[in-house]
Amino acid sequence: MRNLSVSTATSLKNITIQDDFWSPYISLVRDVVVPYQWEALNDRIEGTEPSHAIKNFKIAAGLEEGEFYGMVFQDSDVAKWLEAVGYLLELQPDPELETVADSVIEIIAKAQHADGYLNTYFTLKEPNGRWTNLAECHELYCAGHLIEAAVAYHKATGKNQIMSVACKLADCIDEAFGPEEGKIKGYDGHQEIELALMKLYHATGQERYLRLSRFFLDQRGQLPHFYDEEYERRQGSIHFPSLRMAKDRSYSQAHLPVRMQQTAEGHAVRVVYMLAGMADVAAETGDEDLLQACRALWKNIVTKRMYITGAIGSMAHGEAFTLDYDLPSDTAYAETCASIGLIFFAQRMLGIEPKGEYADVLERALYNTVIGGMSRDGKHFFYVNPLEVWPEANRVNKNFEHVKVERQQWFGCACCPPNIARLLASLGSYIYSVKDNTAYVHLYIGSQIQLELAGQKVHLVQQSELPWEGVVRFEVGLQTAARFKLALRIPDWSGEPEIRINGEGLTISSDQRTDGYVVIDRQWGPGDIVHLVLPMPVQPMKGNPLIRETIGKIAFQRGPMVYCLEEADNGPNLHQLVVKSDADKQVAFESGLLGGLQSITVPAYRIREEGWADKLYQANIDMKLEATTARFIPYFAWANRGSGEMRVWVAETMASTKFI
Amino acid sequence: MRNLSVSTATSLKNITIQDDFWSPYISLVRDVVVPYQWEALNDRIEGTEPSHAIKNFKIAAGLEEGEFYGMVFQDSDVAKWLEAVGYLLELQPDPELETVADSVIEIIAKAQHADGYLNTYFTLKEPNGRWTNLAECHELYCAGHLIEAAVAYHKATGKNQIMSVACKLADCIDEAFGPEEGKIKGYDGHQEIELALMKLYHATGQERYLRLSRFFLDQRGQLPHFYDEEYERRQGSIHFPSLRMAKDRSYSQAHLPVRMQQTAEGHAVRVVYMLAGMADVAAETGDEDLLQACRALWKNIVTKRMYITGAIGSMAHGEAFTLDYDLPSDTAYAETCASIGLIFFAQRMLGIEPKGEYADVLERALYNTVIGGMSRDGKHFFYVNPLEVWPEANRVNKNFEHVKVERQQWFGCACCPPNIARLLASLGSYIYSVKDNTAYVHLYIGSQIQLELAGQKVHLVQQSELPWEGVVRFEVGLQTAARFKLALRIPDWSGEPEIRINGEGLTISSDQRTDGYVVIDRQWGPGDIVHLVLPMPVQPMKGNPLIRETIGKIAFQRGPMVYCLEEADNGPNLHQLVVKSDADKQVAFESGLLGGLQSITVPAYRIREEGWADKLYQANIDMKLEATTARFIPYFAWANRGSGEMRVWVAETMASTKFI
Repeated sequence: MRNLSVSTATSLKNITIQDDFWSPYISLVRDVVVPYQWEALNDRIEGTEPSHAIKNFKIAAGLEEGEFYGMVFQDSDVAKWLEAVGYLLELQPDPELETVADSVIEIIAKAQHADGYLNTYFTLKEPNGRWTNLAECHELYCAGHLIEAAVAYHKATGKNQIMSVACKLADCIDEAFGPEEGKIKGYDGHQEIELALMKLYHATGQERYLRLSRFFLDQRGQLPHFYDEEYERRQGSIHFPSLRMAKDRSYSQAHLPVRMQQTAEGHAVRVVYMLAGMADVAAETGDEDLLQACRALWKNIVTKRMYITGAIGSMAHGEAFTLDYDLPSDTAYAETCASIGLIFFAQRMLGIEPKGEYADVLERALYNTVIGGMSRDGKHFFYVNPLEVWPEANRVNKNFEHVKVERQQWFGCACCPPNIARLLASLGSYIYSVKDNTAYVHLYIGSQIQLELAGQKVHLVQQSELPWEGVVRFEVGLQTAARFKLALRIPDWSGEPEIRINGEGLTISSDQRTDGYVVIDRQWGPGDIVHLVLPMPVQPMKGNPLIRETIGKIAFQRGPMVYCLEEADNGPNLHQLVVKSDADKQVAFESGLLGGLQSITVPAYRIREEGWADKLYQANIDMKLEATTARFIPYFAWANRGSGEMRVWVAETMASTKFI
Repeated sequence: MRNLSVSTATSLKNITIQDDFWSPYISLVRDVVVPYQWEALNDRIEGTEPSHAIKNFKIAAGLEEGEFYGMVFQDSDVAKWLEAVGYLLELQPDPELETVADSVIEIIAKAQHADGYLNTYFTLKEPNGRWTNLAECHELYCAGHLIEAAVAYHKATGKNQIMSVACKLADCIDEAFGPEEGKIKGYDGHQEIELALMKLYHATGQERYLRLSRFFLDQRGQLPHFYDEEYERRQGSIHFPSLRMAKDRSYSQAHLPVRMQQTAEGHAVRVVYMLAGMADVAAETGDEDLLQACRALWKNIVTKRMYITGAIGSMAHGEAFTLDYDLPSDTAYAETCASIGLIFFAQRMLGIEPKGEYADVLERALYNTVIGGMSRDGKHFFYVNPLEVWPEANRVNKNFEHVKVERQQWFGCACCPPNIARLLASLGSYIYSVKDNTAYVHLYIGSQIQLELAGQKVHLVQQSELPWEGVVRFEVGLQTAARFKLALRIPDWSGEPEIRINGEGLTISSDQRTDGYVVIDRQWGPGDIVHLVLPMPVQPMKGNPLIRETIGKIAFQRGPMVYCLEEADNGPNLHQLVVKSDADKQVAFESGLLGGLQSITVPAYRIREEGWADKLYQANIDMKLEATTARFIPYFAWANRGSGEMRVWVAETMASTKFI
């Protein structure tokens, strides 16, 4: 095996986020989200669907009486919560939280079978059903989340109990699955085990985990088809009849061997979790075909199947991708977890080849869909993140049944809330990476970090005014002068950047700009200061003319933030607002609005209703527009002021059209 | 009871359609549609879902062995076919067809129980379930269709067998239902029996049928709720779990007493069938509250919930209305049967109060959705009539699962094809009506008719160039001169009309124009000639600014025909075409195109894709448009040239916008 030269992700131990925008989120995760979710997992949040997830473990552990309740993958909610706890503990000690986590680890350990098997659904509901329905039943998915939790918790605390559970479970899986005679040749309907085994491999150095991960990827989509075979062995019994998981191969990306897939098909979360695993294996093994498939699917997603908010999945049925350029705003699925998975994938690609486009998409998903998926109080969540809502229609028209117009306290299928928690808790690992004596800065988030460069420890202090202004300052802490490269990402939303080093302007040569980064290669001295200014004009955005939804419409973006109109600011019938792309845009920081944010106000027109009373269609009539102003707020902050209309894509006058 | 002064509908015996546009349709129904459907009902069309409808009757009659198959309302397909046969036989004798019909009547009669009950589903599948699930099981609906068939067949042939079956069935129902102690206080989930009983009342003069019809209308929506009561008596057993028919009261318009309903809610076909029955009862009884409810619901439908094609029903789930101004083009349900029901309702309202708006809507539904529901070969049908299709998305995105991009040979739920047949076969009864010594001309369709006016028989010969030109000529055949009124409808699509009587121009006074008609009150002489010219410019149509779907878009209409773009004429990506409402429009009759039709060609622009390769969103970019032409064809003719894109509402430049 030949591994690729991959950049080192930064350990959370070495970084401290100190940022006006993000520090409150990290605190929120620590002080509110994780404690709140602990209550939810223990069924102590009133008025919500019960989770029963902890109870399932207690019953499986023999500590309580009762029956399994919830989705087949209910275990994973506990694992994702525990993983978030691991990251929080890695950031800073918290003995009280650690005690709670240890207590749940104790229960999990007791629920594990002697042979390492661990899954409360099968233990309690189908004790003889182990590994009989991989297409639908998420056993390996749950195992993967447990492994991710174990790696995070072990890294933070050094404690072995959960790591030992995870290794026993992985070994149990390794005993059951593999190319050897007599082993199962299957793979999970929901990818996750692949990337988790890679984490376990990196944590333990045990190559069998890498081999097993690769085995699962290699098997997917091969013929004769494993899902047909197990379906017949089960004599056709199924769990989720409406989705045809066992038969609709593309739903689980099992329609083709993974190396042959060129378009993102089926369940969006599965696609990006799979791709994260593929990138991990490719990075480790140098498997060029696997890497090419990663690149092809990346390109398909980000150039044909992604919303401007970094959301993916155009259809509720199957929570799935549909086809190129099919990006409806109002019936979008755009699951929070799918954007989180896209971030996982982007981070891995960034490790393999530091190209700005990966970080651009990562940032787009993070600042819009992911943080939009949680309310500013940390206790309400979106599963689905539409780009347009009309609450009256959402109540009545079943095409919008999957869309909630306000964030919910919890979900029967509660995958998204703990996914947000674990991502935000580990945000520090997405900001920098180091490769070939180069420190890459992918995200502009105020922080202090310790990096290994030119054979010494470099202490980098970043101050950032993002996302509201594109002003960043770095201070380089060094023992002695040293030569290394600092690669500063120039985001796709930025104008021509200005860089000053110790107050002196840097003329950026074309050599210095590669793949979306300005690479500064110099002898750095202790206390060197780098100033970076990324011009952040309001950008009128258009969609590709092949997107039906965005024709004749415009969206505003400023920095990483995509903006939207809300009824709270603009009244109802937002579709009647028409803007000009070249109108003057007023940007103002409103400290009192929704925790403080930059709003955009533009002159606009409103289509008037006069002359239309009791008329549905009229001939030879000019629409009358009256001047007004439209106020936009960042998309992530929508739906924090009650139920109301929202839209990202707004009608545009054709003034900016060129007739040729 | 005080009945309203209602205009007399014309008997098919007294009218002969002789029309370039419509005569081929009537012939098609006689020569192709009805014979084809007979084959379908007998399961002899290869490659389609079996109907089994005739077989069900044979089995119930004890003539064959086997089991019931199909929907609970499968019987109604046979009844609607038989009704169409009745109209055809009323138009002209056809011994061969009559023999076929008599043979099926024989079978139906044998399937009837001794007490008059008749329903093959309950006879064969639930012999003890009679009248236990009115919310879901369509027993009275099927009975209604049988009654309608009987009335039509009896009127045409004078034969009594099917009329006797119908009366026995109606009497059986009258025995079971009613306000009297011990009788069932329920009503059918799908309205139909109400209007059918009114036909039976008119055919037999038996007041009990009128009383029963009114009883069913009066009961609907009363509390305690009958559907809850029968649901409990059934201990919660249900037929259609996904639709919650038994619990979702508005699905069956049972959410309120009918006189209190102000908006069209739930299943669209049910709404308009109910309203037809309500109008019938109101006309007969002078029930002002009932009439007001008809007017209120009419207004709600045609001013807030109707597509420009005269289609209704915005949502696939429940085939239902949603809310005011929610009129999506691509996910529309727009069922053929619903527009047919809207025509039934409009005709009855026109009888009560001859206002042009009823005929305008009737004509809109007829010329667009209804005939669009059938292919020009008479053997393929649409159930759903969207205003926009993108075939690639329809294949993949489940939001469009209900939409077919090409007409189908038959359906598992085959309500629409025989509904088109019976409507077209009886088209002659929609053209004229007579009231208060006035002959109303509602539709301009070439025909000869015998009317009773001023105490004598008046023979009116209409020649019409509609729908392609607004040129109409009437010749008045009389024994002796007589004074009566001729009321000519001035359609909503017409410019200022020109009328000449015996070559002499008529100055139309405002007195003569009432409610959409020009009323000519004069002494008519034998051989008088009336020329009517209805200017028929291409009309750029706009939608009410409260309709989200139509903002920034335009549709073309000419005469009664709504136009659409098809991929066959304009290439793919029809959303990239942009037109100006004030552009020159070329109208041309193309005799070789789809059986001959008038096309509209307009200068247009196409949004270019250059500069967008591999880019999904871009900032600060002007869309580039190149000049092209767009060719529109009438909506009814779409999808006769294979699978391709279609759209009615087309992007418009904002050139015609007034900024105020």
